[in-house]
Amino acid sequence: MGLTVGLDVGGTKVAAGVVDRRGTIVEKLKRSTPAAEPSRTAQVIAAVVTELRGRHPVQAVGLGAAGFVNSARAAVMFAPNLAWRDEPLKQRVEDLVGLPVVMDNDANASAWAEVRFGAGRGYENIVFLSIGTGIGGGLVLGGELYRGGWGMAGEPGHCRAVPEGRLCGCGNRGCWEQYASGSALVAEAREFARRTPEGAIRLLQLGGGHPEGIGGPEVTQAAREGDPGALRCFQIVGGWLGQGMADLAAILDPDCFVIGGGVSEAGDLLLAPARAAFEKALTGRGYRVYADIMIAELGADAGLVGAADLARVSLLRRPRRRLDPSPGRDRLRRAGPAR
Amino acid sequence: MGLTVGLDVGGTKVAAGVVDRRGTIVEKLKRSTPAAEPSRTAQVIAAVVTELRGRHPVQAVGLGAAGFVNSARAAVMFAPNLAWRDEPLKQRVEDLVGLPVVMDNDANASAWAEVRFGAGRGYENIVFLSIGTGIGGGLVLGGELYRGGWGMAGEPGHCRAVPEGRLCGCGNRGCWEQYASGSALVAEAREFARRTPEGAIRLLQLGGGHPEGIGGPEVTQAAREGDPGALRCFQIVGGWLGQGMADLAAILDPDCFVIGGGVSEAGDLLLAPARAAFEKALTGRGYRVYADIMIAELGADAGLVGAADLARVSLLRRPRRRLDPSPGRDRLRRAGPAR
Repeated sequence: MGLTVGLDVGGTKVAAGVVDRRGTIVEKLKRSTPAAEPSRTAQVIAAVVTELRGRHPVQAVGLGAAGFVNSARAAVMFAPNLAWRDEPLKQRVEDLVGLPVVMDNDANASAWAEVRFGAGRGYENIVFLSIGTGIGGGLVLGGELYRGGWGMAGEPGHCRAVPEGRLCGCGNRGCWEQYASGSALVAEAREFARRTPEGAIRLLQLGGGHPEGIGGPEVTQAAREGDPGALRCFQIVGGWLGQGMADLAAILDPDCFVIGGGVSEAGDLLLAPARAAFEKALTGRGYRVYADIMIAELGADAGLVGAADLARVSLLRRPRRRLDPSPGRDRLRRAGPAR
Repeated sequence: MGLTVGLDVGGTKVAAGVVDRRGTIVEKLKRSTPAAEPSRTAQVIAAVVTELRGRHPVQAVGLGAAGFVNSARAAVMFAPNLAWRDEPLKQRVEDLVGLPVVMDNDANASAWAEVRFGAGRGYENIVFLSIGTGIGGGLVLGGELYRGGWGMAGEPGHCRAVPEGRLCGCGNRGCWEQYASGSALVAEAREFARRTPEGAIRLLQLGGGHPEGIGGPEVTQAAREGDPGALRCFQIVGGWLGQGMADLAAILDPDCFVIGGGVSEAGDLLLAPARAAFEKALTGRGYRVYADIMIAELGADAGLVGAADLARVSLLRRPRRRLDPSPGRDRLRRAGPAR
């Protein structure tokens, strides 16, 4: 199988690309998403695929959708930022384009891309975290995407970090993403600028004089320039991030964490405090190996590259017959003195 | 393969049993553990195996060890309640008994037993929680035991439930097991009896007149009799349990939770408040299926039955060749309208 189209369908835009078996994007397009109408969203997807097919011999389509995808990977059950409610997106797009369609959650697609072509290459158990407005997650366990019983796995952003903590869009209080996301970073900086404008001169300058003008890029720029307040914002948010990763390590003991999403562009500004908090909080430290913590490599393209590869891999592989369930998987792990 | 011996090696006792392929215990023995000396622990294990072999045609040995077992499942890296430190237990026992030995963490063995022969039968993604002094855990994902990158997965008891919370034996503060374990239940009841003896008359009666005489069985008995204070203790601890299960569901989306360990003998006294808290805290509720929450069925035998079966299954199965990593596993899931 040669080329597949991958799409990353979010609340504001559809990014599509023709991707080859090495994860290289041959051609890329972007369209805005008509988020309010599911049928129009599918039409935009189909139009983009048709356009790309006109120029490339495409054999399948991969859809990364910003929503809860069901376990059959046929429908989006719910999407916070789109009008999808139990939307049979796979079938709808297949009918429109006449190609096999493979669908998955967008964070799963990104996780898959990082494992196949990015920072997660060579690892078997990976926790991918997308740090943006919220925290998205994707789990690759034993070399395979893990989706859970009903396709809803990998939402660590909605674990409770603080009893009776900050209100979250999901309806709960104290969710991790209220403390360790890009929104949390910006909220921290704005509150600081409101409360202590004389200490936030550079942040306010970058924000055009108003706390509300301060966004993620402004906090990052100020921190890069060494602004103490902006640096402190990264330490606070990175600290929450590292604590949560230690909790995930207690449960999943991954080989590595790959950190993507917009905030990951801040690199070590985020990772240094996150690593410090992780190493301080990890249970059993001293008696175990620390997981690697790395910045994602594929940036904003991860979703479409992963979706395209999921389509390729799913359609290429014969179904495997399940034998008697067993713990035999890790018998084939690479053995080494460090492990 | 007919019979294997399974052993559950804890800090105070070694339980061993000859187990058949249906998980039935043919004969069972118990010995106390010489916990302070690793070589003597291995000798006791070997003596028990030798004794059972004299009466049954045993083909392999499964060891469930109360400690961190490394990813090669050859050594116990650390055990909180035994003198094992990087102890090559598998080889030591193999040398002594002359049979192949398969080792795993004791909670993993119990989880496996419940999936194969107990409450977890027919499920593919199971979180097993052993609620006793602490919280032990075992994960069966996609029908296989999941051990993580270095064999340390499945320790949710050391996730942080409360920032700056109660001090834990692991050195951290606020660990979940400080709130949702048998120890937490007893601590709650004793503190209540100390603070408000006039409200804790029945608890104190059962405890021989002293708060320190109140243990798990006393709290359970008082609660069964309808004692409001004891019932409240179960509600508090069950509430913490349910909240933590909701967090685990956000990450792992399991088909079911199986609750074992000593406290699980309280049944619905623990499960009713746990279920209520779980359903209240689950993120995405209303758009997803709730995992089943069940009491374990194999009781204190789970560890040895699971260890015996892990030995049987590991030695029976040919290693599988790993193909290109892919998300193909759940293509074979049973499909149904309810899922």
